[in-house]
Amino acid sequence: MAMEKVILPSQPLPALSIDSPPQSILTQDDLKRISAYKAVEFVESGMVLGLGTGSTAYYAIERIGELLQQGKLRNIIAIPTSKKTEKQAISLGIPLSDLDHHPVLDLAIDGADEVDQFLNLIKGRGGSLLREKMVEGACRKFIVIVDESKIVENLGDTGLSMPVEVVPFCWKYTAGKLQELIEDSGGVAKVRMIGNGDDEKPFVTDNLNYIVDLYFQKGRGIGDLNAASDAILRLAGVVEHGMFIDMATTVIVAGGGGVTMKNK
Amino acid sequence: MAMEKVILPSQPLPALSIDSPPQSILTQDDLKRISAYKAVEFVESGMVLGLGTGSTAYYAIERIGELLQQGKLRNIIAIPTSKKTEKQAISLGIPLSDLDHHPVLDLAIDGADEVDQFLNLIKGRGGSLLREKMVEGACRKFIVIVDESKIVENLGDTGLSMPVEVVPFCWKYTAGKLQELIEDSGGVAKVRMIGNGDDEKPFVTDNLNYIVDLYFQKGRGIGDLNAASDAILRLAGVVEHGMFIDMATTVIVAGGGGVTMKNK
Repeated sequence: MAMEKVILPSQPLPALSIDSPPQSILTQDDLKRISAYKAVEFVESGMVLGLGTGSTAYYAIERIGELLQQGKLRNIIAIPTSKKTEKQAISLGIPLSDLDHHPVLDLAIDGADEVDQFLNLIKGRGGSLLREKMVEGACRKFIVIVDESKIVENLGDTGLSMPVEVVPFCWKYTAGKLQELIEDSGGVAKVRMIGNGDDEKPFVTDNLNYIVDLYFQKGRGIGDLNAASDAILRLAGVVEHGMFIDMATTVIVAGGGGVTMKNK
Repeated sequence: MAMEKVILPSQPLPALSIDSPPQSILTQDDLKRISAYKAVEFVESGMVLGLGTGSTAYYAIERIGELLQQGKLRNIIAIPTSKKTEKQAISLGIPLSDLDHHPVLDLAIDGADEVDQFLNLIKGRGGSLLREKMVEGACRKFIVIVDESKIVENLGDTGLSMPVEVVPFCWKYTAGKLQELIEDSGGVAKVRMIGNGDDEKPFVTDNLNYIVDLYFQKGRGIGDLNAASDAILRLAGVVEHGMFIDMATTVIVAGGGGVTMKNK
């Protein structure tokens, strides 16, 4: 694994001062856009591309649409990781397909909720983890684009959620089994709800499943990721979880000090 | 693990000659009914019961309904493992609940497609594997009822299917990944279809998912069950598989020579 300091994007970023930007003027959104644009530099004409979901992936997709329209990219076939991304891509005129027709992708670009030093990820706080994992698991290269706030020592030790997609059938029971699994290490499992009061109901994924968010103890994290992965997947009722272990090949991190790129 | 030879059912089986039955007059259906009735002898008033799915479980549920109606069983709460079983139980007046309200069951009774010497099972050729695994994984005791044709040396070596439930999203892709997983050992993965010609479409489970049937080589079987289980569950897109490893506590086998019971 090599850590590489990268000069800021070679293609001009409109409305962003990119030459040694003073730290104070860059918002988190600016940083997301910078890493997204940097990732799109790796897109070549003729590629089959996986399009991620979320606020950072949004900028990458927007940029790909722009380059297609300008004729700087041609013959792209894109596979979206959510209905939301599908909509955005259609609105930008990006040609779409799916994994059934393209079981091997050249490159996927997506954001992440957490990234550790080994390029393992937590994804899915937006709820698209299953389709993201299917598409991004089918890629030759998977570039993750984040702002520096997403870099962590160990996954889960921020105290934020690691989402698990579960079938709706007896979801309370499955949430209880997940709680049992992590409570020895001080973790808490909560079904993701939307609405308030009487209108409150479980959040529904693109696959018509529910999400159970697992919160691990701050500073302690998930621990052995592969063991946690297998234990969670062995629970009947669990469809998928948000740990993306050994999948990312490159992470592009935008921070106040510039853009860094880490390859596997 | 103890093998025990059991005298034939202590409660009379109507329309069946049960005293030293000549081998030739017992059909496979008779054998299914014999093992089902034997299992129901373990049901006690006040129990929370898991009700299986399939042609053998059907007889057990019918018998439980009969005993409730006769007042020989009282205060049973039953949890069905499929919509089909739910219907049957309702028609018999058996009170129903679910895992959300009863996360621990006293006893479940269900059939199986294959049973090995360690009481590991293949289930789900009827398509109800996910709910069966959830309910039967929540039981203190799990009695499996089969006729002797279901007893195998090693799971999968009959050449019949081991079903895997997958999400509909990019199901062809997931079927392809399952094929890749087993083709080195000569296995074949096929999406379960219903209908013919233009009307042909994937079979849909109670959870609105699809089934990929895995066929392993005759005489060779699945091999290391735990390794196969983890490998299959790690595929994004897979919801559950039909190997029930280390779950059954008792297997009741009805054969031409009588009924045998094996406990774990």
